[in-house]
Amino acid sequence: MRWIRFTAEAKTAYGILEGQNIVEVKGDPFSGHERTGRVHALEAVRVELPVIPPTFYAAGRNYAAHTIKAGHQVPTKPDIGYRANNALIAHNEPVIIPYDASEKVVYEGELVVVIGKKAKRVSEAEALDCVLGYTIGNDISERTWQYMDQTFWRSKNTDTFKPMGPWIETDVNLDSMETIIRLNGKEQIRFPTNDMVFGIATYISAMSHNLTLYPGDVIWMGTDGGSPNLKDGDVVEIEITGIGTLRNQFIAEVVADAPG
Amino acid sequence: MRWIRFTAEAKTAYGILEGQNIVEVKGDPFSGHERTGRVHALEAVRVELPVIPPTFYAAGRNYAAHTIKAGHQVPTKPDIGYRANNALIAHNEPVIIPYDASEKVVYEGELVVVIGKKAKRVSEAEALDCVLGYTIGNDISERTWQYMDQTFWRSKNTDTFKPMGPWIETDVNLDSMETIIRLNGKEQIRFPTNDMVFGIATYISAMSHNLTLYPGDVIWMGTDGGSPNLKDGDVVEIEITGIGTLRNQFIAEVVADAPG
Repeated sequence: MRWIRFTAEAKTAYGILEGQNIVEVKGDPFSGHERTGRVHALEAVRVELPVIPPTFYAAGRNYAAHTIKAGHQVPTKPDIGYRANNALIAHNEPVIIPYDASEKVVYEGELVVVIGKKAKRVSEAEALDCVLGYTIGNDISERTWQYMDQTFWRSKNTDTFKPMGPWIETDVNLDSMETIIRLNGKEQIRFPTNDMVFGIATYISAMSHNLTLYPGDVIWMGTDGGSPNLKDGDVVEIEITGIGTLRNQFIAEVVADAPG
Repeated sequence: MRWIRFTAEAKTAYGILEGQNIVEVKGDPFSGHERTGRVHALEAVRVELPVIPPTFYAAGRNYAAHTIKAGHQVPTKPDIGYRANNALIAHNEPVIIPYDASEKVVYEGELVVVIGKKAKRVSEAEALDCVLGYTIGNDISERTWQYMDQTFWRSKNTDTFKPMGPWIETDVNLDSMETIIRLNGKEQIRFPTNDMVFGIATYISAMSHNLTLYPGDVIWMGTDGGSPNLKDGDVVEIEITGIGTLRNQFIAEVVADAPG
């Protein structure tokens, strides 16, 4: 089942995506819903963020090859990290490369876990029961800022640096999924989505030992491989088989006078 | 003017605190409000979190003495950090010390800035115009986890580790304010609240260069001084003159069998 959040006729709602049509619902996937009689063509709506998370978690380094290539140690325990809501944009919205960014703006294609039920101190065996479904994230990073700043505030949380979507798929086979990243239509990398250092159940169980997870929280699971530097006009598509494709174009900001 | 969020007769609302009485409003301080005819005694309501932030920012090291004492360099630029909503609790709610925490659980009394208006690329001169008001935070930290983990997920974002409140004061004189921390009624430390490495306008202007700040976002401004290790039964009060006092008791968690 695919949950989509969309705007049609100036109204934002959740719907269930069936083929190329959306059955609008009253309510939402977290607190309950009823199907309405309204059906919209997918191509006729604006796709919105599938959820605005109460807390936005990110695993960071969670694929061994990517981590070693970047010159870091593979993590020895699942210490979860964070990203920020200001940076979220939906499928098809433009990523704005700030005028003062370096050339090192890169993609990271990631599986995103969407929490469906409140969870505290769940075992690994119970962990996936609190998951509503899965969507796709692009953890865009500006590497120069990443290494010169004390936090990820600019490098990863600049406005528009966190595309997420296009929808939430509730039924997946984690072990057969592949993540495929395309730049301007050309495949760049393909990797087994679930080939993680620490898997989803391990993260959720560990996190829930100290934290309560809430409906709508998202966990971005990290990425594999590298990325070329991205520039004005580039289109990045992240496909995860069984979910769909998240597509965003990069636009270089132009300013007449560099603002403060 | 003091904005308070409270629950009375099973209903949560915003109100304006006038002396020891709350004038309930319809709406909220961010999107507009009307005074109602309902008045509640402060002592008869449950004080709630003054706001649930879309993004929860924290300056971290922002007082020179505290930073040097902890063995760190004083920051050379205002790189903002983050905390997580799961950890927020209101005035008078208990802080739970997890059964598996070390003895190094400590307070950090902080001024909290509450954003009132959307802000992007504001100058330092314009920055305070987007502030609704100020409240108080206790950035509780477990120092053993802080130094052994890759992120602050357990050390600072364990459930109940972020008391915030009791209310939002819109009219303050930043330069005359003092932060006073009491443990079990005894004053531990007192410092000028605004004696920061980077002030509020500097942070807001710098952050807003890359980030959009939204109504309800909070920025915790850091702390000065140290803290003894806190234990079961301890009561920590953080007073900031001109705002009020945030009070929370610490309770040690007891578990029959250590859960996973």
